Amino acid sequence: MHNSDINRLQLLSEDELQLRLTRLRDLMSSADIDALLISSNANIYYLTGRVFCGYIFIPLAGMPVYAVRRPSVLTGTNVEYIRKIEDLPLKLDCGFASLGVEMSSASYTTVCRIQKAFGNNISYVNASGILAETRSVKTDFEIEKIKVSGIKQTALYERIPHLYQPGMRDIDLQIEIERAARREGCLGQFRINGDDMELFMGNVLVGDNADSPSPYDFAMGGAGLDPSLPVGADGSLIRPGESIMVDVNGNFTGYMTDMTRCFSLRENLSDKALTAHQISIEICSTLAEMGHPGVEAKLLYEKAFSMAQDAGLENEFMGHRQHAGFVGHGLGIEINELPVIAPRSKSVLQAGNVIALEPKFVIPGVGAVGIENTYIVKADGPMECVTHAPRQIVYFE
Amino acid sequence: MHNSDINRLQLLSEDELQLRLTRLRDLMSSADIDALLISSNANIYYLTGRVFCGYIFIPLAGMPVYAVRRPSVLTGTNVEYIRKIEDLPLKLDCGFASLGVEMSSASYTTVCRIQKAFGNNISYVNASGILAETRSVKTDFEIEKIKVSGIKQTALYERIPHLYQPGMRDIDLQIEIERAARREGCLGQFRINGDDMELFMGNVLVGDNADSPSPYDFAMGGAGLDPSLPVGADGSLIRPGESIMVDVNGNFTGYMTDMTRCFSLRENLSDKALTAHQISIEICSTLAEMGHPGVEAKLLYEKAFSMAQDAGLENEFMGHRQHAGFVGHGLGIEINELPVIAPRSKSVLQAGNVIALEPKFVIPGVGAVGIENTYIVKADGPMECVTHAPRQIVYFE
Repeated sequence: MHNSDINRLQLLSEDELQLRLTRLRDLMSSADIDALLISSNANIYYLTGRVFCGYIFIPLAGMPVYAVRRPSVLTGTNVEYIRKIEDLPLKLDCGFASLGVEMSSASYTTVCRIQKAFGNNISYVNASGILAETRSVKTDFEIEKIKVSGIKQTALYERIPHLYQPGMRDIDLQIEIERAARREGCLGQFRINGDDMELFMGNVLVGDNADSPSPYDFAMGGAGLDPSLPVGADGSLIRPGESIMVDVNGNFTGYMTDMTRCFSLRENLSDKALTAHQISIEICSTLAEMGHPGVEAKLLYEKAFSMAQDAGLENEFMGHRQHAGFVGHGLGIEINELPVIAPRSKSVLQAGNVIALEPKFVIPGVGAVGIENTYIVKADGPMECVTHAPRQIVYFE
Repeated sequence: MHNSDINRLQLLSEDELQLRLTRLRDLMSSADIDALLISSNANIYYLTGRVFCGYIFIPLAGMPVYAVRRPSVLTGTNVEYIRKIEDLPLKLDCGFASLGVEMSSASYTTVCRIQKAFGNNISYVNASGILAETRSVKTDFEIEKIKVSGIKQTALYERIPHLYQPGMRDIDLQIEIERAARREGCLGQFRINGDDMELFMGNVLVGDNADSPSPYDFAMGGAGLDPSLPVGADGSLIRPGESIMVDVNGNFTGYMTDMTRCFSLRENLSDKALTAHQISIEICSTLAEMGHPGVEAKLLYEKAFSMAQDAGLENEFMGHRQHAGFVGHGLGIEINELPVIAPRSKSVLQAGNVIALEPKFVIPGVGAVGIENTYIVKADGPMECVTHAPRQIVYFE
């Protein structure tokens, strides 16, 4: 950020803002929403290029109003300072009949305060869906940020073999990966949609710890180091014959990429594990070829599952003791955006979707194998991969 | 965790559970709540000693029911598996007239689904307040966890001078502190109550970056490295004559301590900065002496402010361009619990409260100075400090 920009509230260019607003307003019209009130950090960032504490009011036509609580120094057109939500109606032209609010993320009490502040004469609509839908199609500017994250995350993954020292436990390796990620420019923050999802910087799973079910709706689990955060590395020693699956934070630009790679000490994983890893690579390639605009997301899941099934690996697909119900997910500002690549997904792929595909297998006695890549859905041609580390298992010794 | 425990849902001892339930049920009775439905990770952890995905149903009398969605392997008395919230009423004795729900943290749509599932014949009450109130008084078992975090965080802070290398920027030092913290056993996860609060592992503020206002309701700000996370280190070079304030994650046990210390390259900070740092140490000592059960939290704030004022430092107290509205906060499972030490706080101190006091000053041209400690309110005597690193500014060279 240039110093001259530091206090400018709106960091998006006018063209970029209009691209995003136009798409959002088309969906507002379809949903009969006259005006939107945005309060989540993720959507405030989407609509300004920065996080602030406050609200963005977006009428169907006309300029948005930026109602700021903190920081106290932001400037720009239509920037208004408020102390609390109840101050907001006085700052606005309230001639709208329906107000869209992020009801799926804002707390019950926050939504009730909004309803009380704006009164009973208008209707309130859950706008979380149209915001998710808008954000699921990335602009060129957003795709550029995602590509930069992909390049940096790739550089990080290529350093991983050099971070291993004999005698390391999973957590020891993870800590060195975390440090290398931060030194590469990783911002650390791992934005997840949904209150009950928690993860710190990502997941390093060694051996049978990959088969420990977790409470979270991630593709893989792990027992974790403490029951207050039961996911990921559990202190297992890294041993020959077991896999090391690395799936760590790709947030280098405010936009995330998601990449998973597997490592092992020596070339002595079981044939079943090696086969499963190869199938994962093939599923990614096949799905990338299939992933054109207009294709139903669920067809990608079905194809992935049938390829696992053909290999006799359906019981190990997306987990063994506990199975994840998806093989891919949209991502961007948050790690879990639309579309979801799942059996009952209603999504249809659109150009500009950014999707992580993670066909993974848990092989008892070996651990987790498979890869994950982040792809861009293109107007024509196959999906474009932006996470470029070598796909084969990399051996440390 | 012992291996035999790994699948046991309830990790608290029966005595410990009853202590917590008794206190919670007293507050339920006062609030006319017949039954509670808990869904947040923080409160699930409080009531079981582990995080799972699902709900805990707590009637005013009788055994709680644990309704689990994930992981699929948990066992114990009254453990029921459900797919979705709508399955829950069938598993329960629904003869209650009022149901308490965490309306301040659960999303609007989640609360509406709960209301629909349990129907219109009962009343719904916001139970977030009584849960916060219950958790504000820690049990001996919880205090033991907090003391262990304090010991580990102290060991970390004593290593900080050894982590500095000439030519480092704030972020370079922060990354080495993060790694040292993780190696000391820090779990990383920084639990914050409130959707719009974000921070990764803590804050290292060097020089005038401490005077950059942030959107978040933390004591200090910082511009951050990216407008998607505008808080903390901004890449400033560490230079003589400036302060280095370190305030990083103390979650080593599922329970957090909070400690801030200041460092500098050499003994050449301005007299004003040195005075302010000394006043901060004195405010901590004075407030620790004042902090008996029965004392109003706001009196502690007033005392801190008047001491800052007497030193002619009221304009630099708790920030300079932007001021934080508190000088301390409860903490435990989350970093922002009750009581809040603020001018309009209605809290009265109780034995078992755990409070971080952070009288800090931002001195233009130097940066942030002052300290933060975590204290336990005792039945008699002054508050007990559990964060023991040396309070004076430590010089690296």
